[in-house]
Amino acid sequence: MDKILRINVGAPGGPTLTEESCGDYAGLGGRALTSALVNKEVPADCHPLGPENKLVIAPGLLSGTAAVTSGRLSVGCKSPLTGGIKEANSGGQGAQILARLGYAAIVLEGEWDGETLYKVVVNKDGATIEKANDLKMMTNYQLMEKFQDLYTKGAMLSIGTAGEMRLSNSTIAVTDKEQRPTRHAGRGGVGAVMGSKGIKVIILDGDGTKMREPKNKEAFSDANKRFNQGLKDHAVTGQGLPTYGTNVLTNLLNEAGGYPTYNFKQGNFPDAEKISGETQAELEIARGGKATHGCHRGCSIQCSGTFLDKDGNYVTKQPEYETVWSHGGNCGICDLDAIAKLDFLDDDFGLDTIEMGVTIGVAMEAGLLKFGDAEGAINLVKEVGSGTPLGRILGSGAATTARAYGIEKAPVVKGQGMPAYDPRAVKGIGVTYATSPMGADHTAGYAVATNILKVGGDVDPLSPEGQAELSKNLQIATASVDSTGMCLFIAFAVLDQPETFQALIDLLNGFYGLELTADDVVALGKSILDNERDFNARAGFTAEDDRLPRYFKRDKLPPHDVTFDVPDEDLDKVFQW
Amino acid sequence: MDKILRINVGAPGGPTLTEESCGDYAGLGGRALTSALVNKEVPADCHPLGPENKLVIAPGLLSGTAAVTSGRLSVGCKSPLTGGIKEANSGGQGAQILARLGYAAIVLEGEWDGETLYKVVVNKDGATIEKANDLKMMTNYQLMEKFQDLYTKGAMLSIGTAGEMRLSNSTIAVTDKEQRPTRHAGRGGVGAVMGSKGIKVIILDGDGTKMREPKNKEAFSDANKRFNQGLKDHAVTGQGLPTYGTNVLTNLLNEAGGYPTYNFKQGNFPDAEKISGETQAELEIARGGKATHGCHRGCSIQCSGTFLDKDGNYVTKQPEYETVWSHGGNCGICDLDAIAKLDFLDDDFGLDTIEMGVTIGVAMEAGLLKFGDAEGAINLVKEVGSGTPLGRILGSGAATTARAYGIEKAPVVKGQGMPAYDPRAVKGIGVTYATSPMGADHTAGYAVATNILKVGGDVDPLSPEGQAELSKNLQIATASVDSTGMCLFIAFAVLDQPETFQALIDLLNGFYGLELTADDVVALGKSILDNERDFNARAGFTAEDDRLPRYFKRDKLPPHDVTFDVPDEDLDKVFQW
Repeated sequence: MDKILRINVGAPGGPTLTEESCGDYAGLGGRALTSALVNKEVPADCHPLGPENKLVIAPGLLSGTAAVTSGRLSVGCKSPLTGGIKEANSGGQGAQILARLGYAAIVLEGEWDGETLYKVVVNKDGATIEKANDLKMMTNYQLMEKFQDLYTKGAMLSIGTAGEMRLSNSTIAVTDKEQRPTRHAGRGGVGAVMGSKGIKVIILDGDGTKMREPKNKEAFSDANKRFNQGLKDHAVTGQGLPTYGTNVLTNLLNEAGGYPTYNFKQGNFPDAEKISGETQAELEIARGGKATHGCHRGCSIQCSGTFLDKDGNYVTKQPEYETVWSHGGNCGICDLDAIAKLDFLDDDFGLDTIEMGVTIGVAMEAGLLKFGDAEGAINLVKEVGSGTPLGRILGSGAATTARAYGIEKAPVVKGQGMPAYDPRAVKGIGVTYATSPMGADHTAGYAVATNILKVGGDVDPLSPEGQAELSKNLQIATASVDSTGMCLFIAFAVLDQPETFQALIDLLNGFYGLELTADDVVALGKSILDNERDFNARAGFTAEDDRLPRYFKRDKLPPHDVTFDVPDEDLDKVFQW
Repeated sequence: MDKILRINVGAPGGPTLTEESCGDYAGLGGRALTSALVNKEVPADCHPLGPENKLVIAPGLLSGTAAVTSGRLSVGCKSPLTGGIKEANSGGQGAQILARLGYAAIVLEGEWDGETLYKVVVNKDGATIEKANDLKMMTNYQLMEKFQDLYTKGAMLSIGTAGEMRLSNSTIAVTDKEQRPTRHAGRGGVGAVMGSKGIKVIILDGDGTKMREPKNKEAFSDANKRFNQGLKDHAVTGQGLPTYGTNVLTNLLNEAGGYPTYNFKQGNFPDAEKISGETQAELEIARGGKATHGCHRGCSIQCSGTFLDKDGNYVTKQPEYETVWSHGGNCGICDLDAIAKLDFLDDDFGLDTIEMGVTIGVAMEAGLLKFGDAEGAINLVKEVGSGTPLGRILGSGAATTARAYGIEKAPVVKGQGMPAYDPRAVKGIGVTYATSPMGADHTAGYAVATNILKVGGDVDPLSPEGQAELSKNLQIATASVDSTGMCLFIAFAVLDQPETFQALIDLLNGFYGLELTADDVVALGKSILDNERDFNARAGFTAEDDRLPRYFKRDKLPPHDVTFDVPDEDLDKVFQW
């Protein structure tokens, strides 16, 4: 993992592939690398789909090693959705294979001719690129059918029709253990940037590669055991997530009155039970699917699963909580089969499920269809996949949809749709939505942990007190975790169990022969956020962009009848260090 | 003109009408009033279509008097198109009648129920409001048919289907001397704000009203004579504009290589002659239309006209230079009949012709139709008028259209489409586009006058030197002129003839019994811009928003092969005083 592969699609004689040493980026991984490179090399005022933007794909520092749950891949660029810097993070096999192939990053850059689609193959002998116009407007599952023999020991990164159309809500799909395109660098339209470079698919062929070797084998192995034990010991990572998946949250958030329902109109959904993680797991198992499953080899949390239809045929991977919410409660839909179908369509076309569901909620608010209309929602996603005018509105995200239909109530920050926690009733996550350089993003500083799950402390979700401090610390920690390749879900154990946090640091030290301390982890997190904030400031972002839409401060959310009342001054303190 | 009419559409028992004294806004008119009120009363962070925004309609200080060409109406709000403050300015009969009715402004405010459309009638006895759901989705010409008997001595302000759909490119139509809805407060989506208050139409019935009386009759009358003589003496206002209309500019800009063609791809249009002002005037006269005509009573410049079809039937008023360009050369269209039809459709649906034409240029760039396809362009505007999904994309403006179709090249600043002068070849207007608080707007500081027409001096249009200073002075002067109710075209005479500038000041002094000097006029202009900049800063605008899209600095414009090279530091100095 000591080299960077640069693919310049604008080189005079056709695309060039260049391998170079990590240079300025040596020692960085994942989000630390993507954000450093984007901030240094991409002009902040460039157009996200123009020749000056770059797409950076980077495994984490521990990816490709024996460290458990280290398979997260970071994808960075200037975001077409937010206009700011973006790191979108995906599970699946991509990070492990890319790291084993020896790459700290792949960088797509240069000015595309706008016509020719390309296919990139990376294997142990290097990388090649070739024209592939026969792939035009293929979906991700179609690409899987075509190429799965090439990556039986690897992974495929691809864009579906959405990315090819350069829609602001388009993802980069990353295949899972079963070679399916079910994992996505989802948020912020990174697929559109890949599309704007004309790269349809990157096949990572892992054949003949080996696991990366630690500098200090014994220390690393010992740390890995302690780390894994820590994950097993914690109630969330050891029981809740494996048993019910992320959707274990539905009942919890609904009971807390923070489950955004009918486009953020109320904080509880009368039909929540019908789409809860408990119901979902029961259904999956009854039909012969799986409720406990990892998205990549080496995962010990196993929060995923497989969703089959009533005849036992594969539909999609187990839809995540965020997806079940966005396509479910947020739209008044309580049909798990319809939600699974929507999840499949999103994956197939390459659409972020959060943004897509939030967008449909906005479309329902605008009167395009009724809340609860599952069939209508499915049709809308199909419109996006085929690129009809209506599909292009919806595929451009919730903010653009609200603009096209002339309505105020788009739950977005920096143009990005809010995830599955109402910021009025879970105020810590509201601070993260408002201030994260990524736009509204729950993963950037998951204050839900402390507000609702009481992990890492207990901060009253309904009070404005202490939320800024909570979000700040979580955003710092998250930026660091996003650089290791570790799944963010390790945070539950790391926040609650000091010995598990130490084991994580020991993993890094054992692997790289370093002597990092907790302070170094904090410093790394801050430096990443500094890079991101610097880019955004130069792109024109101000404190005014670190705010929720005004109606969250105005309109009360039942059942608690709360507004978002964390003072602006608190929001402005999040990044003061 | 000593009272303000406030219409609160969100009052508990139904809309209320309240008349109050001008209070803080006493002594202000036009843009000075709208910008002061918006900056003071509208929260900068509100949603443009939400309950906190207000729409302010204000005649100028000299409107309703005997002063020639004093019929401009200012419409202010937070703009749905730019997200910043907006003053859109219209000719027609509206300003004169509103001023004669005694109102310094009408303010629409409050939270609309989203269902009920209203009709407002203002006459010498006061104002009334009533439900008018029968008007739903009527076009402006349909409203004229229905109401023209009510305003034979007045004017109608209305929104077409675009404003009712709250599209970001929607206007407020103002009727002309012939009672037709041909004049528009066009830019920035002010029609959507009127639509978001549920007001479909405001009828200003001037019956029984009189011309406003000056304090110093003799001084005023004397000044008016000198002023009028000054307009007649100047080549532009005395000959060029009356003879050929604003479209006299086509040949001039085309020869200067600054005529944006094919979505700003080149600076000259091979078929320019076919749509020039000279050709247009000849055609109009040959068909029995008019090439010399005023948009409101009391205009002595007479830059307008009437466009008939080949059978002698009315099509539209004489399309302006900006319209002939946006729907013509910018889209590679050289058919004056098609352009007139597009102008009619824009007026009828209530769409800004500049934004609409720039949007179609972007759609052509994106491959939706070919450059030169007049029939296709007409169909696109019809899509907007009827609110199809494609129409909603296009009706949301050029920036949204570029987003939906994933392309970089949208010629916009602050989300607003650029008018008919390429900023690379007419760099003074480029500075105005970049820095005006309004977004790309030629009228905000018409440097074309000095760059191309050599009015008010001579600044080489191709050199970056002196452009910031030029734009600065013009933006200050313009803000003042926009407060008097005077047509901006007086600027040609005022800039070149000191005695005409003095006559303008004497008009104000004679009417109000003041002793203003040129310094006061400059101070007024600065204070207006300060208000507007203050609002925008609080709305989150920074220096980064005072820039052209990056590709204008990167891509050379033929035939001069120039880029926009005015340094950012110069742009940042425009508002330093």
